[in-house]
Amino acid sequence: MKEFRGAKNPWRTLNQRWVYTNPWIHVREDSVIRPGGSSGVYSVVVMPPSVGVVAVDDNGLVALVKQWRYTLDRLSLEVPTGGLNDDELDPDGALRGAQRELQEETGLQSDLWQFLGTIDNSNGVTNEVAHLFLATGVTRVVEWTADPDEPLTVVWVEWEEAVRRAVSSEITESVSVCALLRADLRRKDRA
Amino acid sequence: MKEFRGAKNPWRTLNQRWVYTNPWIHVREDSVIRPGGSSGVYSVVVMPPSVGVVAVDDNGLVALVKQWRYTLDRLSLEVPTGGLNDDELDPDGALRGAQRELQEETGLQSDLWQFLGTIDNSNGVTNEVAHLFLATGVTRVVEWTADPDEPLTVVWVEWEEAVRRAVSSEITESVSVCALLRADLRRKDRA
Repeated sequence: MKEFRGAKNPWRTLNQRWVYTNPWIHVREDSVIRPGGSSGVYSVVVMPPSVGVVAVDDNGLVALVKQWRYTLDRLSLEVPTGGLNDDELDPDGALRGAQRELQEETGLQSDLWQFLGTIDNSNGVTNEVAHLFLATGVTRVVEWTADPDEPLTVVWVEWEEAVRRAVSSEITESVSVCALLRADLRRKDRA
Repeated sequence: MKEFRGAKNPWRTLNQRWVYTNPWIHVREDSVIRPGGSSGVYSVVVMPPSVGVVAVDDNGLVALVKQWRYTLDRLSLEVPTGGLNDDELDPDGALRGAQRELQEETGLQSDLWQFLGTIDNSNGVTNEVAHLFLATGVTRVVEWTADPDEPLTVVWVEWEEAVRRAVSSEITESVSVCALLRADLRRKDRA
């Protein structure tokens, strides 16, 4: 974007240390000089990139997954999402990760994939970037069973109903809302 | 939603401890029994709710803010966003917080506010819920200056151009993408 030309980082990082780590996240605390000149700390929750997939079959039905979100202590209706593995961090890795996550979470596959761009989540705190995809003409792979530690239920809804839910906050997960609405607007040739 | 009736938490929490805290985030590590029956840990990055505001003037121009995102090490073009303060956690607090953030980040105010629902960001890791608003007929408040530690530049763009950028990934921040696209689809009476 022309507005970003000549951009310069107004922050100075003096020191970095890892303050918490587990298999999914790493928390880094940086000593910084803020843009205004005062000193302080800035902590970043470091996470792998993630993917989200709007999966549509030949009847125009969208495959959503219903699962319990431990962080929010409630059920959530979402498009299939997940973090990328270490071997999916190359330029083509996001697509492979999206294909893997779709199959793992729903048992579905597709030969027709379109990239819907990226979003960043909680970008004041995390470095998570999500890559969004639209998979059309999805078909079921035989002999699929859900992971017992990730008990998902697949719910098929009409395209317009999925979009309505993303607008009305029946769907709230950010990757799902962005992917469904971007796909809908692209379908209508708005952008 | 009818799909959520009778929902039961499939996780069991055995113990919780705080493993990192700073003025903006708290990291909690829980000992859990996973839905499949195995034991492990689940860590939650606990954050206050946030707000995001699509602010439009009487000429149909949208006020976006350009700022450096330390987490991503780059500039980001976004709608005005921010975390709620401790005195903004009551049912009307999100609206007050949105009005405060809009004025702090842009010097703008409005008498016409519409709620665009909520989203949750990185909901595998954080408990962040963002409340989205549309403020129309915004006008400038006199004698506003930006916070030197949060050097923002306000960029005015046409409605259709803002939506195009949210679809094309020139705007990637999740609250901004969701708020702009929800506002656009509601304007067109889709939901």
